[in-house]
Amino acid sequence: MAKVWLVGAGPGAPDLLTLRAARLIERADVLFYDALVHPDTIALARHAEKIPVGKRCGRHSTAQTFINKRLVDAASRHELVVRLKGGDPMLFGRAQEEIDALARAGIEVEVVPGITAALAASASLGVSLTRRALSRSVTFVTPRIGENEPSSNWVRPVLAADTAVIYMGAGQADAISSALIENGMRPSTPVALVESASLPEESHRFGTLAGLVALAASTGAGPVVIVLGEVLREQLAPSLATLGQTEKKMAA
Amino acid sequence: MAKVWLVGAGPGAPDLLTLRAARLIERADVLFYDALVHPDTIALARHAEKIPVGKRCGRHSTAQTFINKRLVDAASRHELVVRLKGGDPMLFGRAQEEIDALARAGIEVEVVPGITAALAASASLGVSLTRRALSRSVTFVTPRIGENEPSSNWVRPVLAADTAVIYMGAGQADAISSALIENGMRPSTPVALVESASLPEESHRFGTLAGLVALAASTGAGPVVIVLGEVLREQLAPSLATLGQTEKKMAA
Repeated sequence: MAKVWLVGAGPGAPDLLTLRAARLIERADVLFYDALVHPDTIALARHAEKIPVGKRCGRHSTAQTFINKRLVDAASRHELVVRLKGGDPMLFGRAQEEIDALARAGIEVEVVPGITAALAASASLGVSLTRRALSRSVTFVTPRIGENEPSSNWVRPVLAADTAVIYMGAGQADAISSALIENGMRPSTPVALVESASLPEESHRFGTLAGLVALAASTGAGPVVIVLGEVLREQLAPSLATLGQTEKKMAA
Repeated sequence: MAKVWLVGAGPGAPDLLTLRAARLIERADVLFYDALVHPDTIALARHAEKIPVGKRCGRHSTAQTFINKRLVDAASRHELVVRLKGGDPMLFGRAQEEIDALARAGIEVEVVPGITAALAASASLGVSLTRRALSRSVTFVTPRIGENEPSSNWVRPVLAADTAVIYMGAGQADAISSALIENGMRPSTPVALVESASLPEESHRFGTLAGLVALAASTGAGPVVIVLGEVLREQLAPSLATLGQTEKKMAA
């Protein structure tokens, strides 16, 4: 019986792969992989046919329905098919479309979780996303702007949570900061941008929501997560603490 | 220079540990571990002094300040100290208190992320927490009920997000379902309870928010996450689909 494994490749660093994922990749007959999977991770597949199906920011894109079809085809020709996805497959990975397509074709699917970028970013920053008496909730969200979708779909959960992590948002920093501030988020909310979390070229930028656009403009071509919330305040520069006090005085 | 590593042990299954975590545990001089870490994971530590500091539901508890002190002490006597925490260290793990205590003592700390229970549960269910056109946000939250804390601290993010995962909530199912329904969440919202995610004894329970109390009462002694949201609807029994239609008719 053929089986397709949807496997999380983690945030980037090859040693942030799980033991289970590593063993599956080593045994795979065919390996489909996303654009952001590390070459060393792909190289673990010793005898697999390796097929890039990367999608990233529209630069190089294989349509999702075509990926689904290729997975079904591969399962009819191979015993162990691994579909390797950046981060965790079940967060912003369009995994459900692949699971459903395989299920409709009567093919067994199993999912192996991976370290998602938000948790890698939190580890690198040394800042816990939750924190006693300060943050009891964390939201992961990705905004779609200008697609006939109300901004409330992504703004509300960001405003409601104590800590928020925005995936795939750096390119839309202007619309994001405008929408959040218009809807009541304080411009002095601490912000961290983590680019290429867990990789040697990882970089961090700290500031406030008011300065998000400039922070985002200074990032490079790596994937970026935007972290927002009071858990970050102590990590920020003294200038920010001053800013926070100024705002408190203004509000008083 | 001594260094303390805060390491995520993942959700339970020993092979859902990361490669980095496994290598660190193998090399550790001393290993502090939580109650829910798998014995096979602890056994990876070949020559370490192994110290249980498990806290779970008040049953067996080592006060957090005492754990902090022991970590600082260990770093003065050993080169490689590993503090192994269930799931991911930065989610509901009180990691910040340990990081801050070590930083105050001038001890270097590094965090290794782990697979959090919500992602293990999502993988086992075969249900993506986010989904195109249905769920753009997911919130992880833990409620504290009856501790002089307004319920809005945890209710608001659950209501605002498309998908929510409640950690450490099964014992308070009654208060949780009451608070969510009172604040406007539909009683027909699909719910899944995943107990002991990723372990051989893992079990799933499906239903609706209206039936949460009965579902929670049927769980055992393993850790439980409660998943809420429309992403679960197709996984539910046909009876639930009927319930949803009935509600739609009543609303029409």
